[in-house]
Amino acid sequence: MKEQIKKHFSRYVEFSDVEIDEIYSKLTQKTFDKKDYLLKEGQICKSNYFLLSGLIRSFYIDNKGNEKITQFALENWWVTNMESYIKNVPSYSSIQAIEKTTALIIDKVELEKLFNSIPKLERFFRIITENMLIAIQRRNDIYLQMKSKDRYDDLIQHFPVFAQRVPQYMIASYLEITPQYLSELRKK
Amino acid sequence: MKEQIKKHFSRYVEFSDVEIDEIYSKLTQKTFDKKDYLLKEGQICKSNYFLLSGLIRSFYIDNKGNEKITQFALENWWVTNMESYIKNVPSYSSIQAIEKTTALIIDKVELEKLFNSIPKLERFFRIITENMLIAIQRRNDIYLQMKSKDRYDDLIQHFPVFAQRVPQYMIASYLEITPQYLSELRKK
Repeated sequence: MKEQIKKHFSRYVEFSDVEIDEIYSKLTQKTFDKKDYLLKEGQICKSNYFLLSGLIRSFYIDNKGNEKITQFALENWWVTNMESYIKNVPSYSSIQAIEKTTALIIDKVELEKLFNSIPKLERFFRIITENMLIAIQRRNDIYLQMKSKDRYDDLIQHFPVFAQRVPQYMIASYLEITPQYLSELRKK
Repeated sequence: MKEQIKKHFSRYVEFSDVEIDEIYSKLTQKTFDKKDYLLKEGQICKSNYFLLSGLIRSFYIDNKGNEKITQFALENWWVTNMESYIKNVPSYSSIQAIEKTTALIIDKVELEKLFNSIPKLERFFRIITENMLIAIQRRNDIYLQMKSKDRYDDLIQHFPVFAQRVPQYMIASYLEITPQYLSELRKK
């Protein structure tokens, strides 16, 4: 597992074994059962989660009482509610396991300390944050402008794993189409 | 002007005068007339822009041919198209001056060099990127879920300057409401 961490962190920045050991020593491993919450709406998010295995969704309840899924994530992805995490305010979204999920959890206070002892880590998280920003921007600006059918095709093409592992009604929520229409699209 | 830069950069990280001088030496100042483009759709964005004065908008053309405004920004804000900038791909959005605008431009290659010579700068841009991400996420997840009237009230309350300086039809585009409805809201 330390190997998975080392490989992941070395994607953008080279860390020595000593540095990886130091980072690793600050990570807490936790396994969440299907439907368990990593974060619940209203809680203050104090951690950043690195998924070792499993599958999660981020969602919030809109003003009509509907669940709105904004993100799926699986192994080797980071998830958090950035606003809650950075500003210490209650989270407006929840993060929930869709499958049994194992995550490495880094506490914000510990991460701040690590930034001081291993400044290269700033670069790693700058790049991770840039990538998150690009993904969110793309989904909102481009993806949700596409026709429903094109969105589904795009999902199938780029994230076939999601289409296989995520329940259909969640895929429909993420794509902002009705489950009925998704079912029709799948039959074609 | 170097004072404005020093004050801005020192918001999140302490830089020495020597470091500020080094950063400053890599910035190019440019003034854009009203309606000039800082970046045009289809170009590869090679810079990050720090606005010293003025007002800009980011927008793209949706698949129905309509302009969609995703961001306004004014003095002391950073703007770029992150996806184009990071991935070296053509930008799907444009950045255009709404007023005469003066920006300090940092070239991506120069910024990468600065990251190496002044590692603290990584922290600064990590924090800037986190804040951008929070703003985008908030607009998309919460803002666009509000009723049209509440969106306008929220804008007036949090960004009165935009309501004063940005043309009404652009405000309407940003709020995703019709100019007619915005006009009604303003009369109330």
